[in-house]
Amino acid sequence: MKIPPVKGTRDFYPPEMAVRNWIIDGWKKVSVRNGFEEYDGPIFELLKMFQIKSGDEIVEQLFSLRDRGGRDLALRPEITPTLARMVNQRINALSKPIKWFSVPRLFRAERPQKGRLREFFQWNIDIIGEDSPLADAEVIFTTVDYLREIGLTSKDIKVKISSRQLLADYLISLGIPEDKLESIYVILDKKNKLPPDTFEKILAEQIPDTSTVRKILDFMSVDSIPQLKDFVEEGSSAFLNIKCVLDNLDMMGVGDFCLYDPGIVRGLAYYTGIVFEVHDVAGELRAICGGGRYDNLLRDFGGPPVSATGMGMGDCVLEILLKERGLLEKQLPKTKIDYFVSCVDENYKDVTVEVTMKLRSAGFSANFSYKITKLSKQLKQASEQNAAKCIIIGDEFKNNKLAVKDMATGQQELVDYDEFLSDIKS
Amino acid sequence: MKIPPVKGTRDFYPPEMAVRNWIIDGWKKVSVRNGFEEYDGPIFELLKMFQIKSGDEIVEQLFSLRDRGGRDLALRPEITPTLARMVNQRINALSKPIKWFSVPRLFRAERPQKGRLREFFQWNIDIIGEDSPLADAEVIFTTVDYLREIGLTSKDIKVKISSRQLLADYLISLGIPEDKLESIYVILDKKNKLPPDTFEKILAEQIPDTSTVRKILDFMSVDSIPQLKDFVEEGSSAFLNIKCVLDNLDMMGVGDFCLYDPGIVRGLAYYTGIVFEVHDVAGELRAICGGGRYDNLLRDFGGPPVSATGMGMGDCVLEILLKERGLLEKQLPKTKIDYFVSCVDENYKDVTVEVTMKLRSAGFSANFSYKITKLSKQLKQASEQNAAKCIIIGDEFKNNKLAVKDMATGQQELVDYDEFLSDIKS
Repeated sequence: MKIPPVKGTRDFYPPEMAVRNWIIDGWKKVSVRNGFEEYDGPIFELLKMFQIKSGDEIVEQLFSLRDRGGRDLALRPEITPTLARMVNQRINALSKPIKWFSVPRLFRAERPQKGRLREFFQWNIDIIGEDSPLADAEVIFTTVDYLREIGLTSKDIKVKISSRQLLADYLISLGIPEDKLESIYVILDKKNKLPPDTFEKILAEQIPDTSTVRKILDFMSVDSIPQLKDFVEEGSSAFLNIKCVLDNLDMMGVGDFCLYDPGIVRGLAYYTGIVFEVHDVAGELRAICGGGRYDNLLRDFGGPPVSATGMGMGDCVLEILLKERGLLEKQLPKTKIDYFVSCVDENYKDVTVEVTMKLRSAGFSANFSYKITKLSKQLKQASEQNAAKCIIIGDEFKNNKLAVKDMATGQQELVDYDEFLSDIKS
Repeated sequence: MKIPPVKGTRDFYPPEMAVRNWIIDGWKKVSVRNGFEEYDGPIFELLKMFQIKSGDEIVEQLFSLRDRGGRDLALRPEITPTLARMVNQRINALSKPIKWFSVPRLFRAERPQKGRLREFFQWNIDIIGEDSPLADAEVIFTTVDYLREIGLTSKDIKVKISSRQLLADYLISLGIPEDKLESIYVILDKKNKLPPDTFEKILAEQIPDTSTVRKILDFMSVDSIPQLKDFVEEGSSAFLNIKCVLDNLDMMGVGDFCLYDPGIVRGLAYYTGIVFEVHDVAGELRAICGGGRYDNLLRDFGGPPVSATGMGMGDCVLEILLKERGLLEKQLPKTKIDYFVSCVDENYKDVTVEVTMKLRSAGFSANFSYKITKLSKQLKQASEQNAAKCIIIGDEFKNNKLAVKDMATGQQELVDYDEFLSDIKS
């Protein structure tokens, strides 16, 4: 009986697994050097946890299941609610700021598309308990630190930064009631995804007053901080905040990657301040990652009011971009082994196995062939496996000697077996 | 609104995550040096896939869910069916023997107990396409190679090895019909878990003939290969096979860990030859791991008849054992950073951030304090974070100089900022 895999999931054969490991190892390395500590939660949580503060889109796309006790559970579509739950559970014991990262496997029950699968990995970094715009800048710096590390330049990608607080201030100054903001965010979030006239039409449907629509469109086309002075007060906290984040990013040495773009609003309901997305400059792909400040989430999850800011980057769009740029091929480390142990005499098959296992026990990666074939074939195997050295066990073993061939130089020397053993142990 | 986690799952705060990473990194390292390549499949598969050949116990404990198209899915309770599916999909393209490993996250909807949780990690190694008992021995060697690496000795643990084929041969020689074997395996699997008289009683319920029961009990108390000669023919393939596996393990240098134990039968329906489990010598815990040969599984999953042998080791029992032996505490690497950048002058806060980010960009792990506090407090922070060096930025920065303190020796030197920057870049 032949059974297919589930649509929208991936099988990771060794070559695909090597790519996944390379991406995830890079995320981990950059997180650690930026001072983040790793955490993780369960793959599933109580369903209601995801209904508290996630966007409607996310809740609709939950894979739900039920445990034996009849409780409704869901596979996690994002890790931020779990993070809020975990931090709240130990809020007093954890020293602030909490700088944590995670690489959760996440699930969304949506139609699979290019760059969006039902099952994917996402790098998350968060700084909790620090109000300073420096924390927002540090999250963005860490994101760029990774993207730069894997070979992407400011010609390939841009961090587009905006502020929900700034947007809220401006919309309120235009007389839009606070309880209408949420629904306008949803529309404004589509600005960079829709043709200008479609966008304008949808916005006009929500806001009947033409001059207000005009003003919003003007605000949405600002592309530098100085221009903002025509819309909001220079002394306002929202203005100072986004200016400070951008200044900090300059000082951190990643200013060339960053720009102000009011078209970034983000879908999730929980953002309260700075929001950002990283996009390919060519504009051919979905966002590579996104994030922002979410100062109310911990309180909404039953904890104290603690500020927070973070970022999430999935593996699917990133991998497409890396492949398109030839950056995977160039950087993926070749698998290699220390020793291949070959044998050309059936009488010494046991010795071949013994030598291989001794090498492994001493910490070396080593392989042998289950079949005794011609030496040339075994040398080919050694070379295919990128062995640094090939050991040849044959006739000379009657004098307790084996040959060690350096696969790079081709040089071969006959060594005493006992000496070889004492060498590998030390 | 405060929401608890789901029972039987774990939250991995940074200290628990460090343990999980240490265990998984060890599994990966030992797999690679033993010549296994990593793969992984999706977290969920079509429900019917798990119903083909897993034990009844496993199928009862599935977390099932449904996708939008109404298809019944299940969270994977083991990875072997996925492995069979993946190998069958590419059977002709893959060169044999296939030596693969994986560290899947698995799920069982059972009541959580000591060493058994609803969500856990399991190290899997498999050799596919190799009949030789050497392959069974290599799987067991790799298992011991890991357990020995993390500090467990033959005084702590034993690999108990048996053979389904040997057992089948003997039972059939006693006149037990082949279609009854499966149900007798289930009983015999309980031998090491039940008091002797209870075990005898249950066996007698299945087999009315007292002398047959007696003979089975005698066979089940054999504890060395030579004694087997009283029960099965020395020339039989089953006898030669298990003898060869044990001889190979001796030759591989792990004979002191291994013994023959007919009480090992294994619950899963798909085993066909050698079966084994690793137990703590004290006998206080569940099996640390188990495995064996399953030569029919690929065929049963719609592929060609290809032989296979493998092992699975969960993280829960292992972690309990390591904690009990004090082996975690002793070996878990301390988190440390390369630099802590401290600042004692508010005017140089920007420089502090700049230096930190430059260090990170150059590949060093570096931290700074969001708050400018007394130097003594920041030095304490540096020491708590196990910083190798602490940079002190203060009054001397007006002469473009900063102090670098070696945290191990306590020695401190004043260096030129530009020199420092060119040093870290090279």
